[in-house]
Amino acid sequence: MTATRISHIKAVCSDSKNNVFIHNYSANSYYSRGKELKLVKSKNQELGECNNETVDLNCVIVLKTLTFVVNPTDIEQISDQHKLKLPKLKQIQFNNPAAILGSEGLFEILYIPPKYYNMGFQIGDWCIPLENDNFGTWSTFTTVKDIKSLLKIKPVNVNNDYGTPIVSSNLDIYSCSILSVNSLAAYTLLNEIVKEWNDDLEQDYIVINLPNSQMGKLLLQMAKYKGIKSIAVLSDKEISSEEDITSILFKYGATYVISESKCKSKHFLETELPKTLGQHGRVRLALDAISGESTYHLANMLSENGKIVTYGASSPLPSQMPTDKLIFDNCQHIGFWMTREQKQNPSLKVNVLKKILPLFEKGILKMPTDNIQEIVWDYANRDDTIFLRELKKNIDA
Amino acid sequence: MTATRISHIKAVCSDSKNNVFIHNYSANSYYSRGKELKLVKSKNQELGECNNETVDLNCVIVLKTLTFVVNPTDIEQISDQHKLKLPKLKQIQFNNPAAILGSEGLFEILYIPPKYYNMGFQIGDWCIPLENDNFGTWSTFTTVKDIKSLLKIKPVNVNNDYGTPIVSSNLDIYSCSILSVNSLAAYTLLNEIVKEWNDDLEQDYIVINLPNSQMGKLLLQMAKYKGIKSIAVLSDKEISSEEDITSILFKYGATYVISESKCKSKHFLETELPKTLGQHGRVRLALDAISGESTYHLANMLSENGKIVTYGASSPLPSQMPTDKLIFDNCQHIGFWMTREQKQNPSLKVNVLKKILPLFEKGILKMPTDNIQEIVWDYANRDDTIFLRELKKNIDA
Repeated sequence: MTATRISHIKAVCSDSKNNVFIHNYSANSYYSRGKELKLVKSKNQELGECNNETVDLNCVIVLKTLTFVVNPTDIEQISDQHKLKLPKLKQIQFNNPAAILGSEGLFEILYIPPKYYNMGFQIGDWCIPLENDNFGTWSTFTTVKDIKSLLKIKPVNVNNDYGTPIVSSNLDIYSCSILSVNSLAAYTLLNEIVKEWNDDLEQDYIVINLPNSQMGKLLLQMAKYKGIKSIAVLSDKEISSEEDITSILFKYGATYVISESKCKSKHFLETELPKTLGQHGRVRLALDAISGESTYHLANMLSENGKIVTYGASSPLPSQMPTDKLIFDNCQHIGFWMTREQKQNPSLKVNVLKKILPLFEKGILKMPTDNIQEIVWDYANRDDTIFLRELKKNIDA
Repeated sequence: MTATRISHIKAVCSDSKNNVFIHNYSANSYYSRGKELKLVKSKNQELGECNNETVDLNCVIVLKTLTFVVNPTDIEQISDQHKLKLPKLKQIQFNNPAAILGSEGLFEILYIPPKYYNMGFQIGDWCIPLENDNFGTWSTFTTVKDIKSLLKIKPVNVNNDYGTPIVSSNLDIYSCSILSVNSLAAYTLLNEIVKEWNDDLEQDYIVINLPNSQMGKLLLQMAKYKGIKSIAVLSDKEISSEEDITSILFKYGATYVISESKCKSKHFLETELPKTLGQHGRVRLALDAISGESTYHLANMLSENGKIVTYGASSPLPSQMPTDKLIFDNCQHIGFWMTREQKQNPSLKVNVLKKILPLFEKGILKMPTDNIQEIVWDYANRDDTIFLRELKKNIDA
């Protein structure tokens, strides 16, 4: 029997004035297996919803953050530019009410009430948050009250108490930590459109821009898994290292990789593309993560009755659409927002994750971890300002 | 019993080199009631499909053009920029194969085989072409073989043999001549979208640009007829004469008329518009005839789950769409092309025209004839070059 003492629960917060800071909960919280868990408020500072000095051990799960992810969405939320506003809690007293940041990450269960043991959960398990709203993953530790807020990823082969988790060859801690946002979105986005198509998909193509992003790599794989061919359009910025990126994209299942400047050319659109597609090939779907002019070039590749879905807007410019594609070719331009999908179908997240998790575990889908930048938050020994600076660097990139 | 002798059948043609010219069929064609009709080819020149020297009087209907219309589509077709290419017929010999131009107009029946009398048709009736493809209305006379190609507009009160048609107060010859294209398109376009809405439309708004066009005025009226409120967005070019235009648009049923520069302003979008709409009002549909930046400003007025339909592109620029409307507000951008609608449903034209004709006859809908420029084609006495020049001026405008 060992005990883990949580002396400081640190969390990255954003207040209503868009300040980002590290908040130290001076919480004399500790866990001693089978004994008691206390989350004590100190200097009017509390953690989350826990208003009681003593937390009922039958209803609280204590999680240790293994990894968390910095997403563009987080940055938009910090700067208050995202449609979905973070609830700024008054309990987190700094200068202003603040929200704990982060929606995606991987946790290890530090403590779980025994009643959940026979539901397949145990101490040491890995899990990811299932809640749709901002979970606050940018923390060293966190607590949840409902087991339904968590999806168990895999039992960890722990060979020393709370020691380093053993990473499987197909699903390491980074793969797990990014499972709940991008892979969920990629599967849902593609599935939402493709489910209307007929079963014989071998003449069907999708085109995507920003293929070198997490979403891009997941979309390419998921299209291939469904038997759909793909054309990845690389932005001109990436052309200098095009060869490397191209080989990476082929690894993730791209059928063709072309540069954006190529797909702008009349010769490509009028001669090369029809030749590539063949007599019956159709570009039925374009997935647009950039907007601006890039939407225009993607849409120009669509076949009659095609659809273009803008799911991101890395460019600040409005999407451009060729009017002849809309009017004469009956193409549609729609948007996709995972948050809306989840609101409309609250069980979507758990259903999709249960569907794709085995695919990742078996290595049929590979989590793209090529570009991951690791920041170690040595919360006990390292100056918080250094961590904040590194986080900011990551956000700015 | 009188006879009309057709000494010259003149038609405006466009050849495959985009030359526009007047073609004189040296056709010694004449009609003598109850006697015979001859369309004689002369110098290898024939009219339409008539390859025989003598036409069977039981199957040919001879039409005299009362009015024809110059549409933007015609101009695009002449310059070969329209998706729908005109079939260039070899029979019409000039320098190159050529097509007789014009898709919209009003005809008077000069001769009709007696078998059609008991189908409600008679000599002197007005009719409009029902064929979906280019009918070739830019001619002095024309022939059709199938009565199904024609829709009878109204019996004309003829008080002298083949004299000037008596014009009803609600439906003059100009109204009739533009019935088959724009009013058909306006009804179909609006109906296609609105049929999915619930029955209580009084909180529903449409916004349109180019409201001062034929289509604009028809859309405003048809929205009002269906009980839907409308916001007409006037382009800044029209602002100098805004007051006049505004009163015209109110006449055609606009609920609100605003300038494009106003609807660009943050204050309008964030304060005025929500106030105008009230708590439950929704802008569910935007109808875009311009594209370019105008699409952007129309789309910004849409409520959640709104739809924007681009049906014209008077600007050569791509449509611009705000990405937040697509992603977060679930707005859709689609196109509308009447030709496609008619191809998908060949009986659409006749069904819609039969539905809206009584509305125009009763004066419930008013055909917008404010802007009509009259060109008189005095085919017998006037130099063709003058007519061509006037037509060209009209096209350029």
